[in-house]
This record gives sequence, C-alpha cells and structure tokens, in this order.
Amino acid sequence: MFRSLAAACMALLATAAVADEGMWTFDNVPQATIQQKYNAKLDPPWLNKVQRSITRFESGCTGSFVSPDGLVLTNHHCAMQCLAEISSESANYVDDGFKATTRSAEKKCPTQILSVLVEMENVTAKVAAATAGMQDAQANQARKQELSKLEAACTKSSEKNRLACESVTLYQGGQYFLYKYRRYDDVRLAFAPHHAIAAFGGDPDNFNFPRWSLDFSLFRVYENGKPLRSPNHLTWRPEGPQVGEATFVAGHPGSTSRLLTVEQLRFQRDTSVPSYLIRNSELRGRLIQWSKTGDEPARIASDYLQSVENALKVYRGFQTALLDDSLFARKTSQERELRERVKGDQKLAGAVGNAWNDAAAAQERYRQIYDRYLYLEGGAGFNSKLFSYARTLVRGAAEGTKPNEQRLREYADSNLPKVSSSLLATTPLYPNFEQVTLSFSLDKLREALGPDDSIVGKLLSKESPDSLANKLITETKLGDPAVRKALWEGGAAAIASSNDPMIALARDIDGEARAVRKIYEDEVQAPVASAQERIAKARFAVYGTNTYPDATFTLRLSYGAVEGWTEKGQQVEPFTRLSRLFERATGKDPFRLPQGWLDARDRLDMNTPFCFVTTNDIVGGNSGSPLVDAQGRLVGLAFDGNIHSIAGSFWYDGTMNRTVAVHPAIILTALKDVYGANDLAKELLGKR
Amino acid sequence: MFRSLAAACMALLATAAVADEGMWTFDNVPQATIQQKYNAKLDPPWLNKVQRSITRFESGCTGSFVSPDGLVLTNHHCAMQCLAEISSESANYVDDGFKATTRSAEKKCPTQILSVLVEMENVTAKVAAATAGMQDAQANQARKQELSKLEAACTKSSEKNRLACESVTLYQGGQYFLYKYRRYDDVRLAFAPHHAIAAFGGDPDNFNFPRWSLDFSLFRVYENGKPLRSPNHLTWRPEGPQVGEATFVAGHPGSTSRLLTVEQLRFQRDTSVPSYLIRNSELRGRLIQWSKTGDEPARIASDYLQSVENALKVYRGFQTALLDDSLFARKTSQERELRERVKGDQKLAGAVGNAWNDAAAAQERYRQIYDRYLYLEGGAGFNSKLFSYARTLVRGAAEGTKPNEQRLREYADSNLPKVSSSLLATTPLYPNFEQVTLSFSLDKLREALGPDDSIVGKLLSKESPDSLANKLITETKLGDPAVRKALWEGGAAAIASSNDPMIALARDIDGEARAVRKIYEDEVQAPVASAQERIAKARFAVYGTNTYPDATFTLRLSYGAVEGWTEKGQQVEPFTRLSRLFERATGKDPFRLPQGWLDARDRLDMNTPFCFVTTNDIVGGNSGSPLVDAQGRLVGLAFDGNIHSIAGSFWYDGTMNRTVAVHPAIILTALKDVYGANDLAKELLGKR
Repeated sequence: MFRSLAAACMALLATAAVADEGMWTFDNVPQATIQQKYNAKLDPPWLNKVQRSITRFESGCTGSFVSPDGLVLTNHHCAMQCLAEISSESANYVDDGFKATTRSAEKKCPTQILSVLVEMENVTAKVAAATAGMQDAQANQARKQELSKLEAACTKSSEKNRLACESVTLYQGGQYFLYKYRRYDDVRLAFAPHHAIAAFGGDPDNFNFPRWSLDFSLFRVYENGKPLRSPNHLTWRPEGPQVGEATFVAGHPGSTSRLLTVEQLRFQRDTSVPSYLIRNSELRGRLIQWSKTGDEPARIASDYLQSVENALKVYRGFQTALLDDSLFARKTSQERELRERVKGDQKLAGAVGNAWNDAAAAQERYRQIYDRYLYLEGGAGFNSKLFSYARTLVRGAAEGTKPNEQRLREYADSNLPKVSSSLLATTPLYPNFEQVTLSFSLDKLREALGPDDSIVGKLLSKESPDSLANKLITETKLGDPAVRKALWEGGAAAIASSNDPMIALARDIDGEARAVRKIYEDEVQAPVASAQERIAKARFAVYGTNTYPDATFTLRLSYGAVEGWTEKGQQVEPFTRLSRLFERATGKDPFRLPQGWLDARDRLDMNTPFCFVTTNDIVGGNSGSPLVDAQGRLVGLAFDGNIHSIAGSFWYDGTMNRTVAVHPAIILTALKDVYGANDLAKELLGKR
Repeated sequence: MFRSLAAACMALLATAAVADEGMWTFDNVPQATIQQKYNAKLDPPWLNKVQRSITRFESGCTGSFVSPDGLVLTNHHCAMQCLAEISSESANYVDDGFKATTRSAEKKCPTQILSVLVEMENVTAKVAAATAGMQDAQANQARKQELSKLEAACTKSSEKNRLACESVTLYQGGQYFLYKYRRYDDVRLAFAPHHAIAAFGGDPDNFNFPRWSLDFSLFRVYENGKPLRSPNHLTWRPEGPQVGEATFVAGHPGSTSRLLTVEQLRFQRDTSVPSYLIRNSELRGRLIQWSKTGDEPARIASDYLQSVENALKVYRGFQTALLDDSLFARKTSQERELRERVKGDQKLAGAVGNAWNDAAAAQERYRQIYDRYLYLEGGAGFNSKLFSYARTLVRGAAEGTKPNEQRLREYADSNLPKVSSSLLATTPLYPNFEQVTLSFSLDKLREALGPDDSIVGKLLSKESPDSLANKLITETKLGDPAVRKALWEGGAAAIASSNDPMIALARDIDGEARAVRKIYEDEVQAPVASAQERIAKARFAVYGTNTYPDATFTLRLSYGAVEGWTEKGQQVEPFTRLSRLFERATGKDPFRLPQGWLDARDRLDMNTPFCFVTTNDIVGGNSGSPLVDAQGRLVGLAFDGNIHSIAGSFWYDGTMNRTVAVHPAIILTALKDVYGANDLAKELLGKR
C-alpha cells in the first residue's frame, strides 16, 4: 500500500507532462489540459473547496473531511499506529477493529496530528538573496538558516490565525514556498474495520489488483473538546464513478525521483536500494519469527511488520525499475539533450556550470560515507524507540542552547511542537520488541562498519549486540514519560548529569554521528543542492514552466480516469465485486474473513463494487486521499497502486501505472450491513 | 568462507590466463609459466602424488591425506555437518569440539563420502557422435543419455579397481571427460576444535582479512574397519612458507562464471542474484530469531545458519561485481571482439551460427519461468529435509522403472549409491526446525507465484503456510529411517499406496514440477548448452587451448605466492599472529575465546603465525585444500578468500584477489599446547 517512505529521495524539475502524468501544485493545475481531455472545469471555487477539505496526517498519510462535524476519512493502514497505541493486551483494536457507538466513545490518538493547508507564499526571492554569491557548503547552511527564520517569523505573524508555517522546496530549489497550515492535535478514532478485512490479502496482494481490501477508517477532529466545524468537506456519491469517468486525487504524495541525474539513479541502483533490501529482508524475517512466539508478540509487531513488508515491496519495485537498462538509456538521453541545449546558450551555460559533474562527484563522496551516515545518523544503527527518545533528549538539550536558525533543522522552533508531542506522548513500549529491533540494528551496524571500527569498538568490545541491547533496554528509565519530561525540561544540565545508559549511549556517539552528518551536509547535500538548483534553472529556461515538481509530501492534485490495463496480454477489468472476496477466503491469515463478515454474507449484495483502478498519478503519502469527481464529490478512497505504479517513483507510464481505490459503496455496506454503524453511515450521506 | 555453492553457474571457456589466474586441470597445468615465474618444477611425479593426496568431500569441500594412516586434513566448516549429525542435546560437538583420544574413539560421520580422483578419460568424441546432427532439445536429451551410458559402462568395467565413474563437462561442452574416483564411505572424525575458535569472528570476519580463524579439522578414512593405508599423502612443513614464496592449491573449486555471455550475466544481475539475496536475507532473519528461543534451537540451526550467511556474503559480492558497469563494458568488448573474429572466418561463422543470440533468447525464456522453476523444482519452495526425502522416494520410485539412460540424471545408476546413502542415513531430524524452514519456503512460494496460482491454490486454499507446514511435519512418518527404507525398497507400488502426507504432497505436485523442469531443460538448458558448445568452439579456434575451464567441482591446480595487497591505500600484511587474537576477543560470540584457550594463553608463543594470504586463484569448494610448496610439502590450509575474491566468480584480479589460509604452525600449537592431542600432532609430523 501507499505508505509514505522516509527515504530521502531528491528530485528535479519534471519534464513536460504527457498522458495523465503529474502531481500538480494547487497554484499550477493544468486546467486547460483537463478541460480539453475530460471536459471538467476545475475553477478556483472547486480548487479552494477541495484544498480545504484535505487533511495531512503528519504520520505520512492524507485524509479528507467528509461531514460538517470534523469527520475524516482515510485508510485503515493510516490508522494502524493509533490502533496499536490505543490497544492493549485486553483490547486488540488492530485485529478486532473499533467502533465508537457514540461520539463520546471516540478515542483520542496519542500522537496523531492533522494539518490543513490554508495558504501558500512564494519566498524564492528571499532565499536567493540570502545565499547569493556563496560557496556550496556556506550556501547550504545559509539557506537552512533563512528557511528557519522565515518559518519562525511567519508563524509568529500568523499567531492570530493559529497557523503553523513550513518551508517547502519545489522543483529541487527552483522555488521556495512557505505553506501555512492549521494544525489539529485532538484527533479521535471513530471507526476502523477488522484488520483481516482492511488488509485482506496482506502482503501477497499488496500492490496487486484485482483486490479486495477494505482499507478505510474514520477519525474525528476535535477543537476545544468539541467536534470541529468543517464547512469545507466532501459530499458522498455512493454509486461511485463510471468506467472512463474523470477522477481527481487531492493529497500529499510523499516523494518521487523523476528527474534525478543519471549518476544519482546509479547510486540508488548500486548502493542505497540493494543495501535497503538486504537489511530489511532480514529484519522482516526476524519480525515474522518473533511474531510466532505468541499472540501478544504478533499483535505488537503487526504494524511495524506491515510497514516493513510494504516498503520492501516498494524497494523491490525500485530495483526492478532501476535494473531496466532502457530506463537508464532514456534518462541518459534526456540528460544529454538538456546538457546540449545548455551548452548552446552561452549565458545559461555560465549559470549552470558543471552541475551534472558536481552532482556526480557529490554522489561519489556519499558512496564513501554511506554506511557510516546510514548507521550513525540515518536511523539504521539504533533501531529502538527508547534510543530515539534518548537521541531527541540529548540533541534537543544541545540544540536548545543555540539561536533558532543555528540549530539542526529538526529542532527549529517550527518543528519543536511535533518533537515534544511525540517525545512526551504516553504510547505503549514493549521491551521484548525493542530487544528484537535494537539487537538487529546493532548486528547490522557491526556488519556494515566492521568489527574494528571505532564506534563498534566503543560499543561492542566486551558485548554482543544481544547483550548490549538487553542491558540498555533493561536498565534505561526512558520508557517512563515522566522521566522523559523531566529530562526534556531539565535541558543540557539534566542530560549531562544523567546516568541513564541509553542517554549515555546517545551522548557517547553524538560526536561521531554529528561529524558524519556534517560531512554529509557539506560535501554531499550542499553540492547536490547547488547542482540541482542550477539544473532546475536550466530546465525552466529550456522547457518552460508548464510542469510539476517532484512529490514532497505537500498538497497536490492529480487527474485521471477509471480505466483497467493490459497485463501480459490479458485485460484487467477496473472494478472488483464483493462475491469474489468470499471465494478467495481461505480461513487463514491473510486471506481470513472476520466472523462478522461470514455471518453477514447472506444479507449482502454480492454485486457491490469493492475496489477499482484509475490512471491517476499518485505515490506513497497519497494514502487516504479522496478520489473526487468533476463536481467535487467523493467517489473513492485511494489506498494503493498496482505493481507498475512503483516505477512511478522514476517515471509515469500511463499504459500500466494505476491507482487502486476503495469504492464508496462497499464502505457504506460495511458500515450499515456488517458493523451496524448506522449513525456514521448517515453522517457520510449527509442525512444526520 | 569458501563453501561450495549449489548455484548452477554456467560458464564458458576461459580467456588466456594472466597473473596467477586459473584453476587448471591436472592434464593441462601450465608448467612452463610456473617454471618461469616461480622457478618451480611440477613434473609428473609431483603432480601424480599431489593428485592422489587430494580427497573430495562429496558434501562440497576438499581435503588431503596427511599421514600414511588415512588421516585427512580439511576445514572445520567442512566438518560442521558431521559435527551436527553426531551431536545431541547431551553432547554438543559443534560448540565444544571433538577429540578422539584413541583411534577407536574416532566417530563415524553418518553421511560423509570422500573420493579420490584416480584416472581421467577424454570422451569428447563419443559425446559428439551421439548428438551429431540433432536439434537442441533432442541433442540435450541424447547427450545426457550418452553420459549416463558411458558412466555406467565405465563403472562396470572398473569394478575390479572399485572405481566410480562420473562424467565431467569442461569448457562448457568443449570437452567431456570421465573422471574415475575411488570412493570411501567410512569416514570418521578424529579432531575438531571449538566452533568459537574455528569460526572466530563469525560472519563479521567472514571473507575478511586480517583473520584469526582456526578453521581446521581432522578425519580418518577407514576401509574394512581399519584405517586406510595412504602412501600418497602430504608431509608437513611446520614453519610454513615465506613471503613471496610460491604456493600451489590443489582441490575442487565448485563453480565460476568467468565467460558467461553478457546476456547471461545480465540475467544474474537482474533476476537470480537479487531474488537470492532478498529471499535468503529473510531466511537468515528467521533462523537468527529462532536461534534465540533457546540453546538447543541455537545448536540445531547453527550449521545451516552459517551456510546461509556465508552464501549471502558471496551473493552480495556477486551483486557488487555485477553492478560494476566496467565489468559489463569489459565483457561486452571481449564478446564483441570474439564475434568479429568469428564473422571474419566464414567456415567458423557457419559452425558457430547465432550462438550469442540463441543464448540470449534462452535466457529470456528462463526469465519467464524462473520463479516457477526455482520454487517447484529448484528447492526454494519446499525447504525441508522431510520433503526432500519424500521427493527422492516419489521420484526414485518412478525413475526406477525406467532404463538407466532415460532417467532423470540424478537417478542414474552412477548416482544411486549417493542418493540412497543420504536417504537412508540415520541423521537427526528436528521437527521444530523443519517448521521454520518449510513454513518460510511456502510463504515465499506463495509470494513468488501469487495467491491465485494453480499450485498455490492446491496447497493453500484452506491453509496458511504455517498451518500446512505444521500438519505435514506432525503427521509424516518419514523422520523414521525404517519407514524411508521400506518405501525405497517398496518402489512405485509402495509410493502409490502410501498415505503419508509428505509423500502425498510430493506426489501431488510432481506433475507440475516435472512440467516446468521439462520447459527448463528443452527451452533453456538445451539451447544454452548448444550455444555454449559453439562459443567454446569459437574460442578454441580463435584463442587456442592454453587456457583453463571454469570450475566444476573437479580437481584443479592453482599457482600463486604469499603476498598481501593494498586496501584503500593501506598495505595489508600477509600474515597474522596469535597475540592479536587475544586482543580482539570480546567474551561474546562470535568474538569469544573458549575457556581452554584463555587458560592456555600463558604457555603459548604469541608470535605464532595464525593465518596468511596468497595470490592463488580459488573459489568455494576449495575449502580444505592444502597449500603445497614447490617440494610438494603442506604449508597451509585454504579456508576462505578475501572480499575481493568473490568477484573471482566473474574475473580474476591479481592485485586484489587473495586466498586465505590457516598456517600449519597454529594447527600444531593448537593440537599440542591447547588440546593435548599429542598423538595427532606427532602423526602429522611423521613421528609416530
């Protein structure tokens, strides 16, 4: 499914769009093309209403308001984290689903934050001014400082509207924006079906179609303890769209890499993607085997395992795409053409310089430090919630003593509310599970850096990964939110005097971790940013601006239509229906139907449409996005792409790439005829 | 370490050798080159004696006779299978090592068979005659039948010398030989050190150097209940070789792929290698996590886990090599040159035809059936000893009704002794471990073929991989050797009437498995064999015969010298010494020293050489090979290569590729000063 990937994918300005290609910013929707192809008029009121109906789940998804009372529709897999956090040994909401019989029974998610994009401000000129004439590394620092400053000033001036400002880099440095969001942190779960039906088919069916996954859930946003008034919301069209009908997806696609340079793609093919696949395949094996030690371990590992399996499928798709030599041939020829065009324009050539070679050299430098960066700073080496707490506390204390714009970006004022809310939230913590992931990641750390590496020597000269993990997890007190709170508020002095072993670990390795981060930022990120900015300039100059930026987990609109495709000579029909769900059920996970569904079988219309596919160009982060018709009505819920959509990270192929959505009819059927959630069904239909 | 890989690597005739390149057959050793470069004279008596001192471990290793009483030196990792098989919950010989204090205490290995190559007979002309004028698929069948026939006739005529004959394909069909072996099946363990010192450094140090692994063990071959007389054996040179001195490795390198066509390499890069890495990384994770459930699981999984980890390192090396675009560029240009030369010679061009395109087309066909072949026939889908028993029984019964030369090759008369000995041996079987591997492989089968595949539907329409594996393992009686014996002897009738669920499974899927095998043999193997034979012809014609064939787990000689290398600008010294072993010990696996070594520390000479490297060109299967000096004396024991040696599968780079060996001095020190195995030490030194 379309989970947002944390992978730091860098990307460039897109080529001129063809077919239904493109994840367009709301200020640059190709209205003429859409009007011409689909006879649909997306005028400013349409766009404005849709924009304000969309919510960003800060955990990496999209949702939409579907009633005037703050009800939000998204995917079930976007609710997994909340479901896991509110579950316990006695109440397994992941497996059993959740239904609030009244509004007062809706359950608050400990860490969920929702944002609605209210305003966008172009600040490209200000950023350019702040970095003018600087060398790469200096410019890179100055740019970050300027963005922190702009965010802080914006947030301050938007206080009366209660908006939070975030800078956004589009077209890989071709444009900079401030996006202003209204944030909501009282988010409550209203409904989730059983995991077995929401993720029916599990990993085997994931990224495949035909499909029968009821991947939806309902949240409600509260403000001041009351359901939010949400006049901007999508009304429901229960019969869904017709074959060939235009559909629009509004949401927050996470990241794409459509215009990496050839050398950047080669780095992914040769270094980052194989490393990811091997590491996480082993992790998958460990999680699966650990899950088999009991029902409780299975429940605890479920969400994480599902996300690892999902990411593995994505990365395998990346690998397949990157090993396609025709991809490299096409990218190489596009790059050659652009470079020729630049060469032919003396002034442009001066401005662009050796951008491609500079990016390639930076990529080579990255290759040298890749493992060290990945394991010490990139999260691969200390895979543990307790360690993240420790690092946040250690870094937060150090950064807190600096002026806002000189801090590491993630500790800038604009980010602090998220950081502290996540640090201090009362979320369950499972030491046995921590042992699995931490010992695994220490094993891999040693494997990647070698037993004679300085950090490995420091940590593992008298311990094995297992024994060290066990000692840290057993002895740390950071599982207690009160302890974390005290350390967070105690700042640098509290951290310096703490003898908590996890804090000590984070403190001990911080020097080396920051050192490799500095190399990364100055010698990889900085020259890459500079090169990409120049390449973006070249593209604007040569190809014009009727184009879209790579995805950046910011609001985009994609257009397309309901349409199947041809797979190995066979036509794939765009709709699935309920009957086949029952035929495919085996009684065993992940093809098991919950008892409630088996019981309801006789009263359900077997012809009810279940899932369907469209040509919309979307990617992870779009999970939970509504499919909207030309009249702005909700006609589907995006939750996945077909297997070909994964290559969409690098290019869009309109003949094969498909969005997979839940049909509104099956959602209503489930609510009314299986779960008896009639009030919610009525609310969706505007009958309340 | 250099375990032999089962991977069916196909390879072509080698290019003219440079540097210390080449795994030479004993009938074609480049004596002049060796004489010139190393001033060493490998005359026929030298070669004859060394040849007859070498033993092939049929499980995938090499050994050598090191006393007149049948004592055989090999690696500890080559003894792991025997150690596991003779261990039990009460006697853990894997962890604790094994020492027979008297000869009568030497312990028989249930499944170990050793072979000594006595004679080689060139049968190229006979094979050519048997396939003359045939189409690919027909020729492929005829070739196999002819080889089965030749083997059977040879074995029959060699009865009085008790020789077993095996056909060998060299130069990818450029030559066919019958190799005649004396076989020994009473092989007893005499000595093995603790696993912790034999595999010191474990997976992190594996394929690395500097190194401190005491990877040796001693077996003794018995005949008629008495130690074998072995007049051909290697004498010991305890001080080992000097830096720069010539060393010769005689042994059985498993397989290399140095002259695959470019499209065959691409198949490995894009299809087989990524698939292998992802699948086995997950298996590794499952095995590790299962090992953590107790000491007994850890012991049971140890050998298999070690071999999975070893293979993973090899395949990661393959991947790195294959993603090196300069490798492809070099192979492409070599191929282009040969094709041009062929084109320029009308007669040759006629004989070679479209060989490269034919091989490429076959490779494309392979890609289409790859997963199905791999999972149904290639062992990936039913990873279980119990299932292998079942398949052997089902297939053996069916094949047994056919004339020898019409059987599947592995059931030809020449192979039957190995098949039945392995089927009927009393080796321990661990149902819980079977559950781990079988459920894993069924999971992967479903993942690869998809939930809607016919075989998957047959097996998993009402079961999960876990529940099916559990049912099969719990209910089958094949764990009992007597049951297997009865079925084996009962033949087709016994199999047809068996209601053992594992037999039923093997029976049920046999049709589809044989069907995909037939496609593989007729549409992949046959055209590839034909193409490769023609390409081999082209190479002989253009480049002559002063060259060596790819490795085929048959006897070879490699020459080289003791020499370090330069790693990232740092010189790596060729020898390690004992002192650093103690400095690197952490007290925790895999850097833990056994108590006996800690106790012995004060009486050991810390300057004793431990391991060393040479430029010899070897590969998995060479594990346990002796390093021999110009006088034919044993000066080392090969057990591994450095990380660069893995690319040796595709090419030999004399500046980086190194063999890693145990030094004879540390073996003697261990026997005498740590383990008190004085009799064995004396026997090695010829003092008995």
